[in-house]
Amino acid sequence: MTAIAAAGARVWRVGAQVDTDQLAPGHAMKHGIEVVARHCLESVRPDFAAGVRPGDVLVAGPDFGIGSSREQAASALVHLGLAAVVAPSFSGLYFRNAFNVGLLLLTCERAEEITEGERIDFDAAAGRIVRPGGELLPTQPIPGFLLDMVAAGGLLAQLQQRSSRRTTP
Amino acid sequence: MTAIAAAGARVWRVGAQVDTDQLAPGHAMKHGIEVVARHCLESVRPDFAAGVRPGDVLVAGPDFGIGSSREQAASALVHLGLAAVVAPSFSGLYFRNAFNVGLLLLTCERAEEITEGERIDFDAAAGRIVRPGGELLPTQPIPGFLLDMVAAGGLLAQLQQRSSRRTTP
Repeated sequence: MTAIAAAGARVWRVGAQVDTDQLAPGHAMKHGIEVVARHCLESVRPDFAAGVRPGDVLVAGPDFGIGSSREQAASALVHLGLAAVVAPSFSGLYFRNAFNVGLLLLTCERAEEITEGERIDFDAAAGRIVRPGGELLPTQPIPGFLLDMVAAGGLLAQLQQRSSRRTTP
Repeated sequence: MTAIAAAGARVWRVGAQVDTDQLAPGHAMKHGIEVVARHCLESVRPDFAAGVRPGDVLVAGPDFGIGSSREQAASALVHLGLAAVVAPSFSGLYFRNAFNVGLLLLTCERAEEITEGERIDFDAAAGRIVRPGGELLPTQPIPGFLLDMVAAGGLLAQLQQRSSRRTTP
């Protein structure tokens, strides 16, 4: 289950063009997702993997998730319990993988105004982020079927839930 | 069926941040895809919809497909027979929609070096574009399952083909 709205989510800031090798370092890729997650972003934010708490959000600059199509670059953040990634733009392949594994991405032109450590509210269905002072930042509306999929925990989780609903009364 | 490789594809150039309202104008959205396609890009390239030929490619600047999540912004280009869109970056929602409807997108950092009217070769599986002089521009590798989906003509077409293969000998 992924929340598509949250209040008081703590912000971790990273810069522009965070790539899939920073998110899921090559040297950890032979291990399971627990190990990959432990090394997530170590080259840009060495304090991230150990310090992040479920429900926190990552706020980044443009072109988040460029690089390879490795799915672990999204599932590592799911494993760490991240509520969402907020950025002005995402790599297309990363955007696709992220929703498939249940990671919510919020496309927000003004993402970089958000600062490290602040606590934000977000509502993906309404298409907005609210900063501590009440300032509202619009996010790109996401179609309902994608929000349903991410809320279910991703594509596979959604298919499993649907099939179990069909077979149990 | 969409080709994932082509030779001598003719180039149409557009600029950065082509949005979904330019691709599928609001005033045409109450009509079918034939009408939407006829108005595709009319505000930026009024010669495009009437002049484009099956197998041509559209080459654009960064952030292609930003705006709304309307699927017609991708299916209009499929309807016109476009072989691919080449750009340095795409909106995440557009990237998702495009592959689902069988439109090939090639992420190419150096897309903007390609000029109007030139004829390029591309090979999405190999991850490259070759310009008329032989110059090679790398494109982001696309995972095999996505290439299969786009080659089949999109997600629905692929599912239909799979289900008909199961029921016919």
